[in-house]
Parts: sequence; C-alpha cells; structure tokens
Amino acid sequence: MTTPDAPAPDLSAAPAGLLSRYLAGDPRALARALTLAEAGRPAARPLLRAARARGTRSVVVGVTGSPGSGKSTLTSALIATLRARGQRVAVLAVDPSSPYSGGAILGDRIRMLRHHADPGVFVRSLASRGALGGLSARTMSVLALLEGAGFDWVILETVGVGQSEVDVAAVCDHTLLVVTPAGGDGVQAFKAGIMEIADVIAVNKADLPGAERTVRELLAAQGLGHHDADTWFAPVRRTVASRDEGMEPLIAAIEQHRAHLGEHGLLARRAHRAEYEVRSLVQERLLSRAREVSADLYARVARGELDADAVADTLMNAEQAAGT
Amino acid sequence: MTTPDAPAPDLSAAPAGLLSRYLAGDPRALARALTLAEAGRPAARPLLRAARARGTRSVVVGVTGSPGSGKSTLTSALIATLRARGQRVAVLAVDPSSPYSGGAILGDRIRMLRHHADPGVFVRSLASRGALGGLSARTMSVLALLEGAGFDWVILETVGVGQSEVDVAAVCDHTLLVVTPAGGDGVQAFKAGIMEIADVIAVNKADLPGAERTVRELLAAQGLGHHDADTWFAPVRRTVASRDEGMEPLIAAIEQHRAHLGEHGLLARRAHRAEYEVRSLVQERLLSRAREVSADLYARVARGELDADAVADTLMNAEQAAGT
Repeated sequence: MTTPDAPAPDLSAAPAGLLSRYLAGDPRALARALTLAEAGRPAARPLLRAARARGTRSVVVGVTGSPGSGKSTLTSALIATLRARGQRVAVLAVDPSSPYSGGAILGDRIRMLRHHADPGVFVRSLASRGALGGLSARTMSVLALLEGAGFDWVILETVGVGQSEVDVAAVCDHTLLVVTPAGGDGVQAFKAGIMEIADVIAVNKADLPGAERTVRELLAAQGLGHHDADTWFAPVRRTVASRDEGMEPLIAAIEQHRAHLGEHGLLARRAHRAEYEVRSLVQERLLSRAREVSADLYARVARGELDADAVADTLMNAEQAAGT
Repeated sequence: MTTPDAPAPDLSAAPAGLLSRYLAGDPRALARALTLAEAGRPAARPLLRAARARGTRSVVVGVTGSPGSGKSTLTSALIATLRARGQRVAVLAVDPSSPYSGGAILGDRIRMLRHHADPGVFVRSLASRGALGGLSARTMSVLALLEGAGFDWVILETVGVGQSEVDVAAVCDHTLLVVTPAGGDGVQAFKAGIMEIADVIAVNKADLPGAERTVRELLAAQGLGHHDADTWFAPVRRTVASRDEGMEPLIAAIEQHRAHLGEHGLLARRAHRAEYEVRSLVQERLLSRAREVSADLYARVARGELDADAVADTLMNAEQAAGT
C-alpha cells in the first residue's frame, strides 16, 4: 500500500516531468498529481486531460450503506481477493462530513493496514465537501487521475451520510450497497430510496441471524418496483467480510453488471462523472460569488426595496455584488 | 377556511386593483397573488415588494418531524387554540416530493377540514421542488405574501423528507420539532442533526408509554451539545394533538423563543429568507442553463478534450452552451 505524504508541497506549478512520470505509473508522481488536483491548481489540467484521453477502463465501484454495515471491512476483503487475482486496486476514501468524523477515516486506514506493504494497492483520503453538500468537484478530478493511472479497480467509499452517499452512487460505474441482517435493514433501505440506486447488494455479516430474511425481503422489494424487459435487478450476495467470505460471487455480480452496461453504458457513466464535475465547479464558483454579496443586499430584499429576481440576475451576470 | 380554486387563471399580468385588494385583505386577491408568485410571474413583483415593505410580523413557524409523528394533527390543534384567541392563521403545506405523495397532502387537507368554515384560516398547498432538492424559491415568495397579508401566524409544514425538512427550519422564525415516544425517537432525532435546528420540541402522543423517557432523553441530549450563556435550550412540551391537549404551553414556548430572538433576531431571520430565495433563484437559472449545454460537451470533458474548469467558466459567463 502506498500513501506517500509529500512534505509541504509547492503547488504553484507542476514540476518538469510530472506528466511523464504520472503516465509511467510512478506512485509518487500520482500522489503529487492528486494533491494538485485536490487543490484545484491549473497545473493539474494537462494531467487530467491526459488521464482522460487514455480512456483506460478501471472498474469504478462506489460502496454505500449505513454506518456499521461493514463497508470498510468489505472493501478490504475485496482488495485481498482482487490482489490474489493480480489486479491493481485504488481506494478513494471521502469524508465530506469532516472535520467531525476524522476518527472514522483513521479507522478505515487501520483496516487497510493489511495492504500496507502491497505496491498494487493505493489509498487516498479526501476530506472535502461540495457546495451542494455532496461530493466536491475535486473528488471527480481525483477519481479521473486514479482511472488514468491504470488501476484495474477504483473503489470509492464515503464515510459521510446523506447526499454524499447518494452522490457516490451517481458518479460510479457500479454501486455496491452493503446492508446487514440486523433490524430489517433491507426494508429501511428500500424506504430511503437507496435500493433504487444499488447495482449489486451485499448482505454482509451473513452469519448473523436474520440474514435469510433480509435476502428474501430485498428480493421481494425489487419485485415491487417499476420494471420492464431491460430492468437490471441488483443481484443479492451474502458476505462475511471479516473472514473474506463471499468475495468471488460478489465480484462476479459486479462484472455481470458491467457486461449489462456495455460499452455504451460505460461511456455514459464517464460523461456523467464529467457533468457532475462541471456542475460542482459551477456551484462552488457561485457560492463564493454569493458570499461576496453583502448581507445588506438580502436585508433590502427582505424590506421590499429590491426584487429577489433582480438580485439573482446580478449574481448570474458576473458584475459581482452590484447594487450594494 | 378559504382555499379558492381559481378557474384556469390568466397569469400574463396582474389585474387592475389586485395590489389594493391584496393589501385590503381580500382572500381571493391573496389567492390570485399567490398563484402569480408560484408561477414566478413578473406581475407578482410589486405585490411582493409591497408585502415586504409592510414589515408585518407574522409568527412564522416551521413544523418538522418524521412522518407519522402527527405534524398535521398538531398543526390543526394549534390552529384551533390560536383561533380561540382570535388570531388569524395561514398554513402553507409544501410537498417537494410530489408527485408521489399527493395522497399525503390530501390527508392533510382532510385533517384541516374542521377549519373549513372559518374565514380566519387560510390554507395553501404547494407541490414544488427546489433546484437543490429543498424548497423552491417560490415557496419563499408565497411565504412573504402570506406574511404581508397580515396573518398573526404563518405555519409552514412539509410532507417531504430530507433536505426540505431541514430547509423548512432554516427559513422560519421558529422551528417546531414533533417527535413521538415510540422507539426512542428522541435519540434518533439527535443523531440525524435535527435537534440542533429545533427551537421548540413537542413530544406528541404523550399519552403513549415511553413519553417520560423520551422527554428525559431529549433534555439529556441537549446538555451534551456545545453551549454557552446565550444558548437557547429548546423547551420540551408534552402534547396530545388528537385531543387538542398541551397547545397553550406549546404556544407559550414559541412566544418565549420569539422574545429570546428579539427585534434583531427576527430581522435577521427575514433577511435569511430573502437570501434563501435569491440563492434558489440562482440555482434554478443555472440548472436550466446547464440543461442547454449539450451532453456532447460533457462527453468531451470525459474524453480529455476539454477542461471541466473551462466548461464551468462557460456556464458562468452567460454565453450559453458555447464550445459545442
């Protein structure tokens, strides 16, 4: 596992040769490229374009599920199985709810320690929050650089809740929903609209009582939704991640979904990630523009002196904070 | 209760005399003004400015809580008590998750039927969703028009879940959180971050077992959070809304919070509503601009032919869909 900590990096420009070293698969160059992309530096742009132009086809899996379902343990077990096949794996752990749950990321890293000495595993943590409460645009850049670095699998995991969990699913090729037998989780997940975005479902901790009932409930719930001839029914697989059990059938189910998506579907997913990135960037620019508007302007709308529409137009039309 | 259904309204312009009739308190003029504002018609703008310039001080209460906690029944009981005091009440029922839960709004309306013959009660339903998944900008306009119409109380209730529930709290003077004794709801609400936004808490269905424990848990949870000398601890009140019980102490708690906010705090809340409206309008404009960008543009970003930043700049700078 390589998680190089660059010593106080100079972000003003990409060092000479960074692009070629990144393209050659140098893990230190990758780490540097990611740091530039995270900071939104223009120096990252040629790297990003090159990464995307490569058109490499990492299997990009988003892992989602309630806290305590064992997402990190399952990710670690997936890595072990994929490495045994000789495949290279990158993990992007996102914590949009930072700084409050720094402990959670630490926990994740501890679980990943078993892959510490393995150069075929690359782990990166991000603690950034997008303008919409979901993932930041920079998360998409980092994802693209990991894809471009030629990993066979890229696993995106968030320790956040709410919008970021939903967004993880929106930006991946495959969404893996992890549920546990306890407390009828399956039915709860269905209520929350999470099941609609799941491509593959792992009933983890399947050695606990209630696992069979949960599997049955999940399958029954799928039958209730709208579906036609093309509808993908998320395969439900039992796993005991803490013992690396059930990983092969789970990986097979993800590959099955990949075949279902086909070339066209995968290209559409990549375009969708780019769209998410553009929209997030626009939101971030807007938010910083809105911050520049003096609070007095909003107070004047509240007093009936200005139209909300007029202020909105001002914000849209670059003349920053006009009207103050 | 007045809920006039205008027959296929002409929205092209405000009819002559609408402003004066609205300001005079004509309920039909109010209904028409709301329809114009909902549709975002320019004809609504002078009405909105006039409403806000009035500076009337409705008590704007947002009612939030899980489905099944009895929000609508409690709203109805609140109305009955306020009407007995001779106060005029407007209710804005928002359903951002429409069209799926049309039935829920119907249910709310049925519960409101007891106020049907009362001209001092005005009920309006909105089924619109903001660009951010929360409330729409138009919801704020409607709220401002209700305030300007001089109701003593304006109660905002959403049948949605998620972001819209949180936003209801963000745009009101007072947030009333409704919880029930069942299943340790208090602790769950605390986890979800809802308790932080509650100004007053009603433990409804307080005749059920576990009510005392829920009250204790809520009070204990409050002690855990960060607080200083100015911290407002949300009063916890027991209610049985289905029998109109506990309404006077609940109303007193809301008025207590109003005194705590003071003149300065209430002005800040109104400015905050205006800010929410402006930001939502900007989001809506942006979203429609983003829709005009051809999908091909995103695909080109995905292929590394364009920078996401460059496309974001294009979107920000009005030259719509340039680069296609």
